[in-house]
Amino acid sequence: MNEILEQTLLYDFYGELLTEHQKEIYEQFVLDDLSLGEIAEAEGISRQGVHDLIKRCNKTLEGYEEKLHLVEKFLSIREKIGQIDRLLESCDAVNTQQVLNGIREISAEIIEEL
Amino acid sequence: MNEILEQTLLYDFYGELLTEHQKEIYEQFVLDDLSLGEIAEAEGISRQGVHDLIKRCNKTLEGYEEKLHLVEKFLSIREKIGQIDRLLESCDAVNTQQVLNGIREISAEIIEEL
Repeated sequence: MNEILEQTLLYDFYGELLTEHQKEIYEQFVLDDLSLGEIAEAEGISRQGVHDLIKRCNKTLEGYEEKLHLVEKFLSIREKIGQIDRLLESCDAVNTQQVLNGIREISAEIIEEL
Repeated sequence: MNEILEQTLLYDFYGELLTEHQKEIYEQFVLDDLSLGEIAEAEGISRQGVHDLIKRCNKTLEGYEEKLHLVEKFLSIREKIGQIDRLLESCDAVNTQQVLNGIREISAEIIEEL
């Protein structure tokens, strides 16, 4: 996974645990794709200050992921729902029973992971 | 939902964010169902100390839930997977298409909630 996508997912799940100030800066960098220099100017702080704050946010967010694994679970459940969708797409008069069994299995796997 | 079930769910999701000491005490109270007095004796702290620590843990865990809503999402997704299972159970030669459409809808709803 590329770094920005990973940071976006981490922020999606744990962003609410950052302070308002951290959120403001981090969003500009990760979601709005502004440069360190642009954020520094807009916020009236040094470029190094922005850099350090973002690094600290990354560390905080990664710390939550190490403990709670929400991004990992999310990606896995999304993949399983995708499998269900593909099974549904492939369904025809001949393989219906097989499709239903497949969905049953995947649905049990999702429950396990929740 | 009764209080112990709610505390258990909160602990399942956010317990890793408590300190080791908090986890030790909280587990004895919520998971092992020990009394405040029993925990106090085992840990060599006052009954009031145990009481305050558990109250503080509850507050911390509820604070995380207010921000991240993991228990709420978990309960909702579990309910939807239950709906899929019930649809699968009800499936027969006559209603197959309807069942498949139902599953498709629910699976889309789960993706929305993740």
